[in-house]
Amino acid sequence: MALLVTKFGGSSVASMEKIKNIALRIKGMRDQGNDIVTVVSAMGDTTDELIDLAAKTGGSDCCREMDMLLATGEQQTAALLALTLKGMGCQAISLAGWQAGIESDNSYSKAKICGVHPSRIEDELALGNVVVIAGFQGISPEGDITTLGRGGSDTTAVALAASLDAKRCLIFTDVDGVYTADPRIVKEANKLKTVSYGEMLEMASLGAVVLQPRAAEYAMHYNVEVEVLSSFSFNPGTIITEVGKMEKQRMVSGVAHDRNCARFALFDVPDQPGVAKDLFKALAQNSINVDMVIQSAMRDDRNDIAFTIEKNDLKKAIPIVEELVKYLGASGMSYGDDVAKVSIVGAGMQSNPGVAADMFEALADEGINIHMISTSEIKVSCLIDEAEIEPAVKTLHRKFKLGKVD
Amino acid sequence: MALLVTKFGGSSVASMEKIKNIALRIKGMRDQGNDIVTVVSAMGDTTDELIDLAAKTGGSDCCREMDMLLATGEQQTAALLALTLKGMGCQAISLAGWQAGIESDNSYSKAKICGVHPSRIEDELALGNVVVIAGFQGISPEGDITTLGRGGSDTTAVALAASLDAKRCLIFTDVDGVYTADPRIVKEANKLKTVSYGEMLEMASLGAVVLQPRAAEYAMHYNVEVEVLSSFSFNPGTIITEVGKMEKQRMVSGVAHDRNCARFALFDVPDQPGVAKDLFKALAQNSINVDMVIQSAMRDDRNDIAFTIEKNDLKKAIPIVEELVKYLGASGMSYGDDVAKVSIVGAGMQSNPGVAADMFEALADEGINIHMISTSEIKVSCLIDEAEIEPAVKTLHRKFKLGKVD
Repeated sequence: MALLVTKFGGSSVASMEKIKNIALRIKGMRDQGNDIVTVVSAMGDTTDELIDLAAKTGGSDCCREMDMLLATGEQQTAALLALTLKGMGCQAISLAGWQAGIESDNSYSKAKICGVHPSRIEDELALGNVVVIAGFQGISPEGDITTLGRGGSDTTAVALAASLDAKRCLIFTDVDGVYTADPRIVKEANKLKTVSYGEMLEMASLGAVVLQPRAAEYAMHYNVEVEVLSSFSFNPGTIITEVGKMEKQRMVSGVAHDRNCARFALFDVPDQPGVAKDLFKALAQNSINVDMVIQSAMRDDRNDIAFTIEKNDLKKAIPIVEELVKYLGASGMSYGDDVAKVSIVGAGMQSNPGVAADMFEALADEGINIHMISTSEIKVSCLIDEAEIEPAVKTLHRKFKLGKVD
Repeated sequence: MALLVTKFGGSSVASMEKIKNIALRIKGMRDQGNDIVTVVSAMGDTTDELIDLAAKTGGSDCCREMDMLLATGEQQTAALLALTLKGMGCQAISLAGWQAGIESDNSYSKAKICGVHPSRIEDELALGNVVVIAGFQGISPEGDITTLGRGGSDTTAVALAASLDAKRCLIFTDVDGVYTADPRIVKEANKLKTVSYGEMLEMASLGAVVLQPRAAEYAMHYNVEVEVLSSFSFNPGTIITEVGKMEKQRMVSGVAHDRNCARFALFDVPDQPGVAKDLFKALAQNSINVDMVIQSAMRDDRNDIAFTIEKNDLKKAIPIVEELVKYLGASGMSYGDDVAKVSIVGAGMQSNPGVAADMFEALADEGINIHMISTSEIKVSCLIDEAEIEPAVKTLHRKFKLGKVD
């Protein structure tokens, strides 16, 4: 008898039929003798419909009230799933975030969980209930309903698994695990049996969002074993765990790519303290995230600075950067959205210094030009022309023999 | 500067356009310097749509989970109204029942308010907020969400007005007050400026549901002055208050009628202790409410018993009563749904014993046969053939000169 925390996302609960399917699945796990806590998202389009209604109020920039509104979506799913389980003869109870003891700060619409007090959940488990919890929400110190922002239900599930000391946190989604590359590009891509927390984090931030980065961070911090698997099949998924628990050390675990990139270059920026700060502060104040950055010393006193942002922020960024070019006294700028990022990720590359070189070689052999490079301990990313992204992913997948892992 | 509690029902918040209209109205009252607490119901069909979803779960007989589900409807309206007010530049905050301190018992789906702890509301009023509260819901001693059953939002509003010591509780609805008779039947029916709590209670239980009976009882108990008025016009409504505060004493305030009646008669029931108990207990166990009852001594040892129930309970009641006829040893029974009830209501009739006689005379003059009579201190009801209900209402309205009241 183990305690399992399961999480079902919006596409897994998009209709009453789908809710029935997951109820059967939960009942199956319960009948095998497990204690089950289930976190659910809002049904399919519910959240979007509520946002549309709110847009008509003229006041939808008030985050507290938006959270009050949006949190109802998850509460509805939780109640409907509990009713469905009970209809199948499986004891169940639903709890809203505030009832489940999910305490957050009061950053409405993007609140962070700051504590979990699961005594009510434990009581309900002791009574033999499957405990269905409205994900994506918490309660602020003031007693107000908050929502946790993007991927909030994943984070709810991982936080609950940590505080309940669950055996495993099962994240059911519409993909069935983490692959060595996007199977739509690389036919021989493999599903990984395990990935490390760090690899998962890198892959998520590189565009392969299977588990939300914040949930992955939380899992890493509290050492929660997470399995990502499909709600539509019974195949085993991918287990996200400590590096030490992985069944074998790989140099490279996967190839990720991200087309959501745009690039800027500023020419002849005077080399004086505070330039980079001015640039990135102006972008941050407009909620534009900068991803890759390079600064190249051309001459003693002037640099070129290049960086990438998300493609959909490009329009917003252009006038800001134009303003800065003048302010900083740069000689000019260029920008474009014809780029993409290809990355290799692997916990094993820390101890294998030749990996980056292998990557550059493989791209060069394919005649692919690299515009920018950024590295971390467990990944190397290259910015290339978007038109070359598919051959790049394919050649790297071959180069690191990912068709044969696990 | 007065504190007003206002309540808007489902038809007043059925669309975003209607929510905007009531927001304007609330803002108007606020701009006049009043503190405002507003209780709202779920938008139009929301509750029915949620009930439909729940019906597909196979578990919709679980009241706790149903309450968890249905309470989201009012929470959504509350958030949307707060957003709309804020969009108009009117400071506002929404609170769910549990946040507003509405404490109830745990009779899910028909919970009763057992206490109000309005400290959060008072804090928000002090901050200058219009406080928008999700009606129809409370929190049980166990910390679970409850719904208050039929008319629950009216009761929420009256209970809040009592605990906040509000100047008045304004119930906005789709009728603009309490009339001397149904204006669809009696063209010269008048809107009453005032009615007493007792009259309102009788009228509501007689089918003229302007304020829910439970809310009227609560208002009477805590002496809350209630005004019922239209959300679609700016006409003054009807004030429900103590008898002593009414501007003039009327003998009869109004004529009510109710077509939702069915009748039973049991013949030659042995006259022995416990017979009535057996009969009405069997009906109550099947959730069938008995309204009028007469027991007539035909001979020394056998009685006829006649009673009425709601028309839609007739089918369910027939086999139960047939069973009882056998069990009690009665000689037979009859039943039918071709009846209706006409009533006169007036706090003043307590001190005017001739009123009932006037009523019977008026009906006799019209050639209308009376099947059953029931009286209380402030009303007289007669069961008549349904076909004669309109002439009955008209003649009584004339008889008691209700075309000229107020």
